[in-house]
Amino acid sequence: MRTPDQNAELALLLEVAGTPKPGNVDRHRDLPDLRFEHFLAGAVGARPGLQSAASGAAVGPAFERAVAGMADQGGGNTQFGALLLLVPLVRAASEDLAQPILESVLEGTTVADAAAFYRAFEHVDVFVSEPPEDLEALDVHRGSEAVPTLEERGLTLLDVMDRSVPGDDVAREWVTGFERSFTAAERLAAGEGPLTARAAATFLSLLAERPDTLVVKRHGEAVAREVTDRAAELHEEGALTADSDRVESFADELVDRGVNPGTTADLVAAGLFVALEREAVEL
Amino acid sequence: MRTPDQNAELALLLEVAGTPKPGNVDRHRDLPDLRFEHFLAGAVGARPGLQSAASGAAVGPAFERAVAGMADQGGGNTQFGALLLLVPLVRAASEDLAQPILESVLEGTTVADAAAFYRAFEHVDVFVSEPPEDLEALDVHRGSEAVPTLEERGLTLLDVMDRSVPGDDVAREWVTGFERSFTAAERLAAGEGPLTARAAATFLSLLAERPDTLVVKRHGEAVAREVTDRAAELHEEGALTADSDRVESFADELVDRGVNPGTTADLVAAGLFVALEREAVEL
Repeated sequence: MRTPDQNAELALLLEVAGTPKPGNVDRHRDLPDLRFEHFLAGAVGARPGLQSAASGAAVGPAFERAVAGMADQGGGNTQFGALLLLVPLVRAASEDLAQPILESVLEGTTVADAAAFYRAFEHVDVFVSEPPEDLEALDVHRGSEAVPTLEERGLTLLDVMDRSVPGDDVAREWVTGFERSFTAAERLAAGEGPLTARAAATFLSLLAERPDTLVVKRHGEAVAREVTDRAAELHEEGALTADSDRVESFADELVDRGVNPGTTADLVAAGLFVALEREAVEL
Repeated sequence: MRTPDQNAELALLLEVAGTPKPGNVDRHRDLPDLRFEHFLAGAVGARPGLQSAASGAAVGPAFERAVAGMADQGGGNTQFGALLLLVPLVRAASEDLAQPILESVLEGTTVADAAAFYRAFEHVDVFVSEPPEDLEALDVHRGSEAVPTLEERGLTLLDVMDRSVPGDDVAREWVTGFERSFTAAERLAAGEGPLTARAAATFLSLLAERPDTLVVKRHGEAVAREVTDRAAELHEEGALTADSDRVESFADELVDRGVNPGTTADLVAAGLFVALEREAVEL
């Protein structure tokens, strides 16, 4: 019987092992400076922070600890977004992974949690858009320098997430009760075959539904929309089972173009955690 | 800075991610009922036992705990042999991973450690040969039923390992001061490129030197010798870099024949741990 922190770590490992996962590092693909092994080390490094969350620590400090451990490898940012989803899920699961408990975890976050979230950015280079002018004092690149502003305005971590929507679909999970994470878990449970194959199928189905917000930030709306349209086409045709070479080519093409739908991968990791924790999938 | 138990877990993950690793589950190959994801879950499950060893727990109980956690997944025995190497290494590393300390850990094992080792077999189906008649009372299949005999004869875990040599090259590490594990670590450190590629190269070099004892037990001396001869040929020709398709075909062929040089993989995991712990490799 795995603990919530073990299931969270396993979710990170299964997520990166899913293949083909167009545009991302997967069991069959490395990026030039970001390799499969960096994700393995990131998952192992995140564990003490995940254990904190499972022991009932506050979300912000547990997240900061998880990120600091995750970032202690040479590939840079491997799982920042996934941890921002997993930490509150693990915290809820330490009681019970039910919607009302998860919501009380999110609503219970404080200004101190928000401050820890900002400090987490000092451990790792995360790609984020420039903030609008009125939010410049809260630019995450400021790291702990933003803390006085957070305190002055009394912003909790949930408030910070709320201000990142729309535009960031990890933050969107926080304000929608982790809607797509739970959807992902249902799809994983309903799937067939190895969990890594289900993770790949779930990734494609999520990418087909909404443009990936990391791709929007890095490459613009048009590219993100094109990627989603092509994922939708492959998904509707059942290409993963019927014509997997087409999905493999799409995956190779996105890797070549440097287009990484990383937010969608984060959602898959969250879905894997929910499915494992609820024993909706066997492993 | 990773702890010894984190490095041990990462070693298990990097080992299975190495490819091509002829005959074994690797980043590119599953066996029919034993998949990559089972090894991921095995590594995550082993962690509490590895943490016990890092906290200074006795080797036998830490090993039993690691095996029980490792076996809590549907693939069966994924990393029994690797854990039998990693647990004393982690225990030594909790002080210092130096040869004299490792030897004092091994020599300090007791009858209680041997009893825990026997109990570990109750958690998982491990392939072992039938024992000779005079050792029948100590057949590991007896699990905890063998404990009275262990106590009567005053056999420590090191004594049990000593009685398994020759014939089991995991046990051989215990009586040679982990000779080949340290050799593997040196090769990993001297290698180039991603650690997963170095793991594959180290696997081939070890397989080329001595017939794999798990293959001997399952398929006999002749098959084990043939596998080693072919590995030696590929290794001497530098086929992994010069003609990797030949190694890939050899890997596919062994998987098809059900020939799994699992003991050699265990040695690679131990070597990865030593290399990570000594910071002889970067990740």
